[in-house]
Amino acid sequence: MPSDLSPPVGKAYLVGAGPGDPGMLTLRGVECLRRADVVLYDYLVNREILRFANEHAEQICLGQHGKTRIWTQAEINEALVNRGLAGQQVVRLKGGDPTIFARGSEELGALQAAGIPWEVVPGVTAATAVASCAGISLTDRDQASAVALITGQESCDKRKPAMDYQGLANFPGTLVFYMGVTTARTWTRQLLLAGKSPDTAAAIVRRCSLPDQQTIYCRLDEIADRVAAAEIRPPAMIILGEVTRSMAHPCWFEGRPLFGVRILITRPLDQLDQLRQPLMELGADVLTHPMIRIDPPESWAPVDQACSDFSQYDWLVFSSANGVRFLLDRLRATGKDARALGNLRIAAIGPGTARELRRFHLDADLQPGEFRAESLAAELVQGAAEQ
Amino acid sequence: MPSDLSPPVGKAYLVGAGPGDPGMLTLRGVECLRRADVVLYDYLVNREILRFANEHAEQICLGQHGKTRIWTQAEINEALVNRGLAGQQVVRLKGGDPTIFARGSEELGALQAAGIPWEVVPGVTAATAVASCAGISLTDRDQASAVALITGQESCDKRKPAMDYQGLANFPGTLVFYMGVTTARTWTRQLLLAGKSPDTAAAIVRRCSLPDQQTIYCRLDEIADRVAAAEIRPPAMIILGEVTRSMAHPCWFEGRPLFGVRILITRPLDQLDQLRQPLMELGADVLTHPMIRIDPPESWAPVDQACSDFSQYDWLVFSSANGVRFLLDRLRATGKDARALGNLRIAAIGPGTARELRRFHLDADLQPGEFRAESLAAELVQGAAEQ
Repeated sequence: MPSDLSPPVGKAYLVGAGPGDPGMLTLRGVECLRRADVVLYDYLVNREILRFANEHAEQICLGQHGKTRIWTQAEINEALVNRGLAGQQVVRLKGGDPTIFARGSEELGALQAAGIPWEVVPGVTAATAVASCAGISLTDRDQASAVALITGQESCDKRKPAMDYQGLANFPGTLVFYMGVTTARTWTRQLLLAGKSPDTAAAIVRRCSLPDQQTIYCRLDEIADRVAAAEIRPPAMIILGEVTRSMAHPCWFEGRPLFGVRILITRPLDQLDQLRQPLMELGADVLTHPMIRIDPPESWAPVDQACSDFSQYDWLVFSSANGVRFLLDRLRATGKDARALGNLRIAAIGPGTARELRRFHLDADLQPGEFRAESLAAELVQGAAEQ
Repeated sequence: MPSDLSPPVGKAYLVGAGPGDPGMLTLRGVECLRRADVVLYDYLVNREILRFANEHAEQICLGQHGKTRIWTQAEINEALVNRGLAGQQVVRLKGGDPTIFARGSEELGALQAAGIPWEVVPGVTAATAVASCAGISLTDRDQASAVALITGQESCDKRKPAMDYQGLANFPGTLVFYMGVTTARTWTRQLLLAGKSPDTAAAIVRRCSLPDQQTIYCRLDEIADRVAAAEIRPPAMIILGEVTRSMAHPCWFEGRPLFGVRILITRPLDQLDQLRQPLMELGADVLTHPMIRIDPPESWAPVDQACSDFSQYDWLVFSSANGVRFLLDRLRATGKDARALGNLRIAAIGPGTARELRRFHLDADLQPGEFRAESLAAELVQGAAEQ
């Protein structure tokens, strides 16, 4: 009954994007983005993560604080429902994990009420990402048998009773505050009033997992002043507890050899990654701005003509991987395939060119030792003489 | 200075494997497994996740409770250090996230002391995975502004003071107990004694994110009895708090159409995934046991002979994708490539065969309308008559 297997309406996926680094997205998250018709994402989600989305997917940012209008929760719920009813695969991409300080239940409630199938795809939540990038454990056999995750925004919401700071101050473990820098003076004062020790160790981590991650170590009673002095703005996390004392300074993440170094790569788009990956691995902030773009020729006529006359040639010489790709793709586009090269011998200049040929299941008959046209000419002459 | 880019000694990666479902592994986790020389993994890590490891990687299980000897922490630390000193890329694969109840700091301390570079790769921690699979939020604007993660194993460790249950009972938010089923009677009694309301809503989730996930809804004062009655064994998580009241029964994960259905696929290894993926998506527990294996012929001599005589043939007929792959690979292995097919016309029986040809950048000249040899014969005859 295959018809039962495809849902009659669309489906919504609440996907956790993790802390920022695209490497911290889950495989399931990638899968959902690949099948998405539309992606509704929070402003703080790293744009690099949107590169995993289906190229036809509509991408909608839900607004940036202080710059563009922020969608209301009701508007978000309505968009999710309408897209789902229209039969679309909808990805609602949220920073971190969708079950922690993400208003997930409100969106799920709306989808449930409208009868739209949904799935929640968990993500790496900011607390564990911060601990990982700082190289500490949030729990520790000797120092903390529990960890609490708390929103620093609670105290701003006047409709509800204030947070029970007495309960937080007495919590037997590490405390991690989400979204707590703008309200730091309020909640640190409340914790101190409730009896939390002023010399409780603290770490403030801004833009965790990203190339400009910033960490400040201090005491509970210094947090508000340090946040103000360093002009720390969201997104930032604050960890309170003995576990932060064991953090190395700098932490492994900020201690990588190229951390803090910004590098611009100008190579063509399809050749960026082989250079970008190892540089990012070493901690560099890699920007890309291709200055060269390889385009097809204005007219294919001379190429097509040569392809029709292949029987008159002995050798086909490729001088670049781009040449291999463009010519082989052109053959297919004109109704031919690799068999058209049947009577030709093939030369490749440079190992990258030979590698690209192998990707097309072709092996170069000749690869000159030096990657220069003169060297190729000499070897072709020698080859002809030996025949 | 490319030589500076490769580290002089090995490197250790503490990688969070997430809750169980391989889809909840991060991209960075996959990257680390691909470059691993050795993987040291906890017994509870899903074996499917080890499939991402480099095929040459040594895979070492650190022991199973009640079945094999469990490595001591000192032995694990020593192995990490020795492998790193030997220049290996070491992946220490842990269930969930390495910074929560994972003894991460002990392993990092040993690596740090030995001067071995390390990195922590966060994972989806069990608390957020359970909430996602149950379809609830751990925090909620109306019900919980904080969530605490607690180990249920604390009370078993006699060397340390008992957990401060008063502090936990007064915590203003959701409580999530890790590894708490075997000790449920102890910690639930302590929480009740400390004044936590007996009718606090609870959810017990066993084997979260896996095809045999099991969920029980009850009250705090029923947890121990329900765990005993249902014979719930580890791994299981227990969520305590109002947020669990809004869980749908069954949750989306357990409500999927094929949840609880076990399906055995006997197709050859390389054809499994196209059937397995959609079945798993619908919730099925898919087992695979290939009953057919496609092997090369005992002798290639007749094939090689035919390949040398290609000029005497007009048509090359492929009847399966395997045939395409084996013949094209054989050509390469004997020093030829797709050019050897230059003078042949190609027929493909079935769309899968034609698709495989396209993967080799070849287009079938003829695809019979019916996927039977008779149909092919008729069309070849017709083609010959038209020439």
